[in-house]
Amino acid sequence: MRTKEQYVADLMKMKKNIYYKGEKISRDHEELKMTLNVLGHTFDAAMDPEKAHLCTAKSHLSGETINRFCHIHQSPEDLHKKQDMTRMLCREVGYCIGRCMGADASNAVNIISYEADKANGGATEYHKNFLRWLDNFQKKDLVVACAQTDVKGERMLRPSQQPDPDQYLHVVEKNSKGIVVTGCKVHITQASVADEIMVVPTRSLTEEEKDYAVAFAIPSDAEGLTQVVHPHNMRARKHFKRGFDFGAADSYVIFDRVFVPWDRVFLCGEHLHGGLCALLFALFHRHSYSGCKPAIGDITMGLAALAAEVNGIEKSARVKEKLASIIQIAELGYAAGYTASSLGKAEMTIPGMGPVPFGPGSCIPNSIYCNVGRCLTGEAVFHEQEILCDIAGGVPATFPYEQDLVNEELRPYLEKYLKRNTKIPVEDQIRFWLYFSDLTVSSLAGTLNYASFHGGGSPVMEQIAITSQYNIQERKDIVKRLAGMSASW
Amino acid sequence: MRTKEQYVADLMKMKKNIYYKGEKISRDHEELKMTLNVLGHTFDAAMDPEKAHLCTAKSHLSGETINRFCHIHQSPEDLHKKQDMTRMLCREVGYCIGRCMGADASNAVNIISYEADKANGGATEYHKNFLRWLDNFQKKDLVVACAQTDVKGERMLRPSQQPDPDQYLHVVEKNSKGIVVTGCKVHITQASVADEIMVVPTRSLTEEEKDYAVAFAIPSDAEGLTQVVHPHNMRARKHFKRGFDFGAADSYVIFDRVFVPWDRVFLCGEHLHGGLCALLFALFHRHSYSGCKPAIGDITMGLAALAAEVNGIEKSARVKEKLASIIQIAELGYAAGYTASSLGKAEMTIPGMGPVPFGPGSCIPNSIYCNVGRCLTGEAVFHEQEILCDIAGGVPATFPYEQDLVNEELRPYLEKYLKRNTKIPVEDQIRFWLYFSDLTVSSLAGTLNYASFHGGGSPVMEQIAITSQYNIQERKDIVKRLAGMSASW
Amino acid sequence: MRTKEQYVADLMKMKKNIYYKGEKISRDHEELKMTLNVLGHTFDAAMDPEKAHLCTAKSHLSGETINRFCHIHQSPEDLHKKQDMTRMLCREVGYCIGRCMGADASNAVNIISYEADKANGGATEYHKNFLRWLDNFQKKDLVVACAQTDVKGERMLRPSQQPDPDQYLHVVEKNSKGIVVTGCKVHITQASVADEIMVVPTRSLTEEEKDYAVAFAIPSDAEGLTQVVHPHNMRARKHFKRGFDFGAADSYVIFDRVFVPWDRVFLCGEHLHGGLCALLFALFHRHSYSGCKPAIGDITMGLAALAAEVNGIEKSARVKEKLASIIQIAELGYAAGYTASSLGKAEMTIPGMGPVPFGPGSCIPNSIYCNVGRCLTGEAVFHEQEILCDIAGGVPATFPYEQDLVNEELRPYLEKYLKRNTKIPVEDQIRFWLYFSDLTVSSLAGTLNYASFHGGGSPVMEQIAITSQYNIQERKDIVKRLAGMSASW
Amino acid sequence: MRTKEQYVADLMKMKKNIYYKGEKISRDHEELKMTLNVLGHTFDAAMDPEKAHLCTAKSHLSGETINRFCHIHQSPEDLHKKQDMTRMLCREVGYCIGRCMGADASNAVNIISYEADKANGGATEYHKNFLRWLDNFQKKDLVVACAQTDVKGERMLRPSQQPDPDQYLHVVEKNSKGIVVTGCKVHITQASVADEIMVVPTRSLTEEEKDYAVAFAIPSDAEGLTQVVHPHNMRARKHFKRGFDFGAADSYVIFDRVFVPWDRVFLCGEHLHGGLCALLFALFHRHSYSGCKPAIGDITMGLAALAAEVNGIEKSARVKEKLASIIQIAELGYAAGYTASSLGKAEMTIPGMGPVPFGPGSCIPNSIYCNVGRCLTGEAVFHEQEILCDIAGGVPATFPYEQDLVNEELRPYLEKYLKRNTKIPVEDQIRFWLYFSDLTVSSLAGTLNYASFHGGGSPVMEQIAITSQYNIQERKDIVKRLAGMSASW
Repeated sequence: MRTKEQYVADLMKMKKNIYYKGEKISRDHEELKMTLNVLGHTFDAAMDPEKAHLCTAKSHLSGETINRFCHIHQSPEDLHKKQDMTRMLCREVGYCIGRCMGADASNAVNIISYEADKANGGATEYHKNFLRWLDNFQKKDLVVACAQTDVKGERMLRPSQQPDPDQYLHVVEKNSKGIVVTGCKVHITQASVADEIMVVPTRSLTEEEKDYAVAFAIPSDAEGLTQVVHPHNMRARKHFKRGFDFGAADSYVIFDRVFVPWDRVFLCGEHLHGGLCALLFALFHRHSYSGCKPAIGDITMGLAALAAEVNGIEKSARVKEKLASIIQIAELGYAAGYTASSLGKAEMTIPGMGPVPFGPGSCIPNSIYCNVGRCLTGEAVFHEQEILCDIAGGVPATFPYEQDLVNEELRPYLEKYLKRNTKIPVEDQIRFWLYFSDLTVSSLAGTLNYASFHGGGSPVMEQIAITSQYNIQERKDIVKRLAGMSASW
Repeated sequence: MRTKEQYVADLMKMKKNIYYKGEKISRDHEELKMTLNVLGHTFDAAMDPEKAHLCTAKSHLSGETINRFCHIHQSPEDLHKKQDMTRMLCREVGYCIGRCMGADASNAVNIISYEADKANGGATEYHKNFLRWLDNFQKKDLVVACAQTDVKGERMLRPSQQPDPDQYLHVVEKNSKGIVVTGCKVHITQASVADEIMVVPTRSLTEEEKDYAVAFAIPSDAEGLTQVVHPHNMRARKHFKRGFDFGAADSYVIFDRVFVPWDRVFLCGEHLHGGLCALLFALFHRHSYSGCKPAIGDITMGLAALAAEVNGIEKSARVKEKLASIIQIAELGYAAGYTASSLGKAEMTIPGMGPVPFGPGSCIPNSIYCNVGRCLTGEAVFHEQEILCDIAGGVPATFPYEQDLVNEELRPYLEKYLKRNTKIPVEDQIRFWLYFSDLTVSSLAGTLNYASFHGGGSPVMEQIAITSQYNIQERKDIVKRLAGMSASW
Repeated sequence: MRTKEQYVADLMKMKKNIYYKGEKISRDHEELKMTLNVLGHTFDAAMDPEKAHLCTAKSHLSGETINRFCHIHQSPEDLHKKQDMTRMLCREVGYCIGRCMGADASNAVNIISYEADKANGGATEYHKNFLRWLDNFQKKDLVVACAQTDVKGERMLRPSQQPDPDQYLHVVEKNSKGIVVTGCKVHITQASVADEIMVVPTRSLTEEEKDYAVAFAIPSDAEGLTQVVHPHNMRARKHFKRGFDFGAADSYVIFDRVFVPWDRVFLCGEHLHGGLCALLFALFHRHSYSGCKPAIGDITMGLAALAAEVNGIEKSARVKEKLASIIQIAELGYAAGYTASSLGKAEMTIPGMGPVPFGPGSCIPNSIYCNVGRCLTGEAVFHEQEILCDIAGGVPATFPYEQDLVNEELRPYLEKYLKRNTKIPVEDQIRFWLYFSDLTVSSLAGTLNYASFHGGGSPVMEQIAITSQYNIQERKDIVKRLAGMSASW
Repeated sequence: MRTKEQYVADLMKMKKNIYYKGEKISRDHEELKMTLNVLGHTFDAAMDPEKAHLCTAKSHLSGETINRFCHIHQSPEDLHKKQDMTRMLCREVGYCIGRCMGADASNAVNIISYEADKANGGATEYHKNFLRWLDNFQKKDLVVACAQTDVKGERMLRPSQQPDPDQYLHVVEKNSKGIVVTGCKVHITQASVADEIMVVPTRSLTEEEKDYAVAFAIPSDAEGLTQVVHPHNMRARKHFKRGFDFGAADSYVIFDRVFVPWDRVFLCGEHLHGGLCALLFALFHRHSYSGCKPAIGDITMGLAALAAEVNGIEKSARVKEKLASIIQIAELGYAAGYTASSLGKAEMTIPGMGPVPFGPGSCIPNSIYCNVGRCLTGEAVFHEQEILCDIAGGVPATFPYEQDLVNEELRPYLEKYLKRNTKIPVEDQIRFWLYFSDLTVSSLAGTLNYASFHGGGSPVMEQIAITSQYNIQERKDIVKRLAGMSASW
């Protein structure tokens, strides 16, 4: 396993192919530092003996101890640990831990590469390619971003119907050495600080769309690959330092005839497995949300409870009702993931096919529970922001700047008038509101809301997953029997 | 284990002490038949080899096979089975199975009788009394109603502050043979068809209120005990018979100087254990709701999905969004109970005391998960009725009576005009809407909504439980650390 | 103007063509008495000098004083008065006053009969027919039901696509004397106690569907017309009499080759005007809801506030928040209708055509405000029931029957234990909960919820009306300008 | 009336007493320019002949034409015009027009200065002082900020109970020339660009709190007055210029022994009138929200509808349902204000006193309708942001910077991949998303949400106003009569 320092040093060896505000930047640019903080923490935690039981795992390939973010889930126990690791780490960095996408994509590709080979009667070696890549991923302790979402062009048209075929990433050339792909993947979180990028399809595909059924991994500075990065950082502070500076960075990842050698190709042309890959990545990723969302709920709870305390209204029934609402969302989200973990097996319900068993591979969390949990927590994002706003009052929106707070003339006034709860040091009240503002009225907060709502699939996507996979017929039959209806239709 | 027939025969041996519409009635009165249907089903199911794995258990006292509704949970596995049995049986009878209260009360009393004895340094024999009673309960396979809710008089006053001290049931006399109690317990479901009634306190109590800290079991026709019953049945049908006729019956149970011999007294005067008993019964009962509520969700789903199909709108996106909402509520409720079962142990978090371990006794489901689940499904009751109303349209409200439907002159007209989906036999469409009306616009439906909202504790009660038991301080500390605040307060 | 007695006497002269539970019944059948109470009140009120300013109007035809329920709105002032009359009368009878449909249909037909004649270049005399009929309607002070909703068969198919063409009422024959129609109109409120029935189309129609574009009025006992009635009454009471016994009655109105003479035909074959008629009736009817819904809100408020008082929790912040929510819905609904009245004119916005001026005729309330108001109050139905349930607790669901309450043995017990707020006579507390139950857990309540949700158009119908009529382009242009976008598309 | 240029020139004559990020700044500082844009627009509009009918009024003092923002409402017509002016101007500047506070405060002070004089039996000359000040305000066409909200210290303590008496602004000295005040008013919008500041009390006051019952107006650069400003601007743009650059600026306004001469004092010591002043300012201000909130609804609608169009999903039923929701909120908010305007009179319902007529003065909008409208639109803030997020997808959160968009190498890629709807120029799609981001994920957006939720009173404040002023007894009486209850209590 690498240290945080080795990880950053490795990043620095890469070619510059990242643009920020129109300029090519280095991977340790000031605006990426907070993001490196966050990912760095995944290395530190794996080294920490107290956290190793959650943050490391034993590779089923090599038998070696690896970072759990590189692991293929072997059992419900692994799923439970991943959920709990995620909740713990997200609490520690103050939001999204940013490294689950590589794990989630690997678990999906592990399955579909095997299944595609099987369907091809052994004519392909996707799974062998993948296992070789996986071994390296685990040994080198890599950070892997997953590039799934295509730009999608006209939303009501399928990939094959788009006026511009590149609106979904696809294979534009194949030769003996590998494949060439073109397209643009968007909202790719942490792609700018990842060692590699795993590409998977966005959606289900038809037979005509087999060129879009492609999965592979490449270094994030591969030839022909350009990133336009949009970092989201906590506001820089000179005074009133935080306990942890959080950041994340999303990229547009543009593939302009990028070459991928065959031994890095894990799917190429099998449209059904392409769709399955999209579905499985989403599923594993929604399971990750059963860890991070409750952690964000913990932080939201802390913000709300402290805001009430600073404002001196923590005993009001209205406040308690709102705190209960935050707990309810966080813990129902956790319970959904817990149940999905416990019921995990090497099988998945595919719309129109029922439960489908998969060959030796990843333990798959239960899809219904992953989806109802992610849907709930996604739908709650703006509701929770409203609760914070309601309890806080207007303070976060108009709070003085830190430069005001250290100005000699203003300081006495501000300390006098910012003191609400006389039992709490005013310095702490100031730090609290500054941090509260970071997570509510800053541009970071605005962006995080969008990430929390849409990331891993918007609530409407989970609703579609839920209704297409649920056994609705069974429920109709219950009612038909109770109502005395005939069973003939 | 008894059969349904033996159960009913035993009921018929009791004294008449039940009033319905101002008349004393027998326990097999026409208006109680549907309720007997429901409870009878718990005997049939235990006999059914296919259901025995869920519906029976091995007594930890006698080692014999008993009905699970008489069982003290020994492990998380038992909690899982109780949840799954409840969901299964509620699906089969079409709503509340009506027998969990005895089990839930027994599990609570099992703990507090032991703890009270321990606190009394062996000066009392509550637990011995209870175990003797329990052995009989299990061997005779009794139906036990739990009488918890007092009339409560002035809601803002405590029991000891009421102008009329009987507004909460309490001990009015103690002698060498036993105790004498007076009071009135309301909304006591199935008390009219129960063999015995277990009485437990409604709420936490102060030292001055020790006379209210009383738990005991008595036959439901005990001297001095009068019931006023309000049955809730599906509407009688002559034609278009249902698959199952559902009913329930709530009683006002009036205690007018009822004598209870000491060997049936499980608590008498220990106010702290009285409050704990109230809390524990509520907790076990909310765990039961993690089984029944998802079952009601299954039925709601079946009603909604069939209504959409009969109306020919099952493919509309609006309908799918609503179906997803029903699934979400049912399965989050189930997941909460599942997680509470898995995390069950002989310990409970008491407000102000943190997690408290209990001596040998029942496996207690996790309280936070029981409460967030019950709260969610309680809050959803009217929302789900709105979904059903929205999908059905006005049909259920104005549907012809069955006498119209069999009238020779009207029948051709009605069959012509009631036929919506031409792929479904009109007879089935008629049966469907009649049954749909039973569960939406009948007085039964109105009553069931109230039961589903308030039964086992209204959502606001769960909110109070949640906020008083949750570790909010831990979440504050997370934020204090992230915000860079001092740890000094 | 007639008296209530004259109205009932006139009803008794009609042929028996109404079925209830498979039997032909007279129009003063026990089950219709409460409905007659309600409609009768509209006659009493018009006679009452204190209410005459709202309940009567001056006919624009004859100049005579007529019941406002027979009036063609001449001005915004008339619309205001109709709204306020409706709110007042609904408060007095305790729910829907049940006579607005005739007024609403007349106002719609007044417009479209004129416009159709104009479009036909004077080749038809619909408007003349209508005015003659209107004069009689006003002079005889008739109760007219409006039959709009067809059974509709397969919902995703248009009228002309139905396997059975009768699923929408249509003209099956035309001759020199009149037309012959067949079909079935459902949920026709008060048709069983109406003097006449006005038939209008359900929806917009295509040119192929001109046989469905038909509007006319006939006596409610016309040859070939059969009704199947479903009354919805407050539960009969022997003791504890109410201040007003409310009832309503919906009919399936079956037309089996019903002949309509030409002088009662107001539209026949003009498909565009058929669609417009459907739209206009809905609009006038939604305006009526701006009177009745606030009245129901007033009653809901009274129920909630009294329940809180009886329960002794009227000062709780939670209760006040819920009362505020009821006020908000009622008064926003009223304000929407008020604004729609003030902005009323002889013009309407038609989807795809913008605002269209109409010839001399009715003053039309603003459509957007009518629709946003009706939508809000429709969406609130189940939410308000939840508030009532929350504040009341379980009492209404298990309350003793009146026979129990007058039983000599039970009475002392029940009066002792039903007494909550010691400041209110227990007799009043009993009357209160009995009435509360009528409007929450009875089958009447269940039906009224469906009526309140779907009557006059379900919320989704108002949403469609809103988005199709609103000037969305104007709002897009505002944003295009602010964003600096080009105006070229 | 002044021009925008004269207004800014006048501001420049003031003393520097405003801090931004720890530095004293001039009133035309770069960060205040967008705010000046907005306020400047109120001068331009009054000069525009097409807008003069709304934006100007005839002074009831001088008879001269004045800016409507300086006017005392004389009639319901004035209230209608103020509402419509506000909606129009807010649409034009893209959010809050920022000048209503002066008008709202003046209308409140106009009433209470008169009433206090009357109550004092002519011993004071508050109203004369006020009218003199008003005449100057109108003639000089001043911008006046209203300083109401105090810092409030311990929220559960009254002003007189605070450990630090300055937590609410109060009189610390009185002498023959005037009064001296100390305190700090927060969230004072536009105080940094106002000519004067009108101070009014925050809340109802007891007799002991008469020093807090003070109202006056002073120049915004008065001796002893310091502001700490927090500007909220649209992000600066070098390329892709907007049609209007919106900004606002909130101040902490610190009063350190500020002297106010008697002729600028409009209330000093009358605690009942102090509370009334707080109530009346809130009421007039909530009426203003019935203009601005619908305008923000118009912009939200434009954003949502265009986002749907750019994304090519404008025909989806889900989108239409969401658009309907935005319309519903905006137009119900407007209708509430419209009704409040129409029902306006020189009287107000005071909790505990019923409707109270006021002497010659302002026309007061109906309080219930003002409050239900403001409450609805306040509660909708985060719901509407969720709708925008849902329709937009992730694009706004990760959109490239304008520097990326003009970079030669990136531009071809970005234009290719940002093109969604092929019917709309990609340049316009870019401008659209940049502007959309301004109002959703920027720090400005975060702040505006807080302003929209809390400004003029949080929803909970309106709920309190509603329940304390509504005639709940009347509704109880309706139900008592219908239920047959006695009238004796």
